[in-house]
Amino acid sequence: MSLAARTYVALLHHPVYNREGRVVTTAVTNLDVHDIARSSRTYGLGGYFVVTPVQLQRELVSEIVAHWQGSRAQADQPRRQALELVEVAPSLEATIEQISANHGADPLVAATAARQAADTTSWRRLRETCGADQRPMVLVFGTGWGLADQVFDRAQIRLEPIWGPTDYNHLSVRSAVAIALDRLFGREK
Amino acid sequence: MSLAARTYVALLHHPVYNREGRVVTTAVTNLDVHDIARSSRTYGLGGYFVVTPVQLQRELVSEIVAHWQGSRAQADQPRRQALELVEVAPSLEATIEQISANHGADPLVAATAARQAADTTSWRRLRETCGADQRPMVLVFGTGWGLADQVFDRAQIRLEPIWGPTDYNHLSVRSAVAIALDRLFGREK
Repeated sequence: MSLAARTYVALLHHPVYNREGRVVTTAVTNLDVHDIARSSRTYGLGGYFVVTPVQLQRELVSEIVAHWQGSRAQADQPRRQALELVEVAPSLEATIEQISANHGADPLVAATAARQAADTTSWRRLRETCGADQRPMVLVFGTGWGLADQVFDRAQIRLEPIWGPTDYNHLSVRSAVAIALDRLFGREK
Repeated sequence: MSLAARTYVALLHHPVYNREGRVVTTAVTNLDVHDIARSSRTYGLGGYFVVTPVQLQRELVSEIVAHWQGSRAQADQPRRQALELVEVAPSLEATIEQISANHGADPLVAATAARQAADTTSWRRLRETCGADQRPMVLVFGTGWGLADQVFDRAQIRLEPIWGPTDYNHLSVRSAVAIALDRLFGREK
């Protein structure tokens, strides 16, 4: 099984920072569900977890997915194929448990951040080294103003921020996930 | 001046295909304005043109930009810096004229598509070769189901589709722009 097929995206809505640096729970954004599902499908991932402790929000996500697997499925097959990858979970811990159950092994937890931190791993290094064993991997992204330190600092791998040629890196999380997957699993035909 | 600083994104809402393959004009999506502006700023571009023949839609985009340059600017400086890059134009031809006026030279027109075509240029080749002269460049993306052939076929450069390890490449245009800019201008610190 390829690394991509063993890799999952987890989009956390808690614990993340708000603009003032306080730990909050953000609301699920409809386009995060769609865009990241489409990117996850393009790069051949094992799944995409929308993670929120708010049960009503998890139900909302499940309804979006069910909607596109129902009557509109025929009209937009690619969207249905993407949304098939979407799962919901109340926490990162529950996400890890589910992935462990799928694969019979705990996933490597790789967290992302927009700010520079110590002891980070480059995307190139992750691409080159992580296919070696058969463990699954979960790439953790934060909504709002990013993952709380309590998640980022405890991850086994902490990835470098995504940089262009400037010092500005306020990408949307949708864009950041797309770039991350391309850096890890992209190819030129 | 670096290639990134001479490069522009043009997001076309006409002429593009709809699901049935007819040439249509799509509506401007608010998040396309924000996400692609943030990606354009991250990768140091010269500007981002939202292109639509519908005057009311161009006014809408101008209002979004003005809103974020007004009272909310202090609260979200990064978003203001991103939206400063946004311009509107009624057509690709008008976009090219504006870029020519900015730089005193016609831009190289590089069009993107999700489907495979003949005589395409790889992203790597564009990255390696296009910094050589001092011409500006415009990367053209289509909304809806992609750029109409009349635009794609006439472009000086036609780029390869963005591929992951699968044959599925139904990325959102927001994701496709982010990946394209990272392939051309990304770096690892």
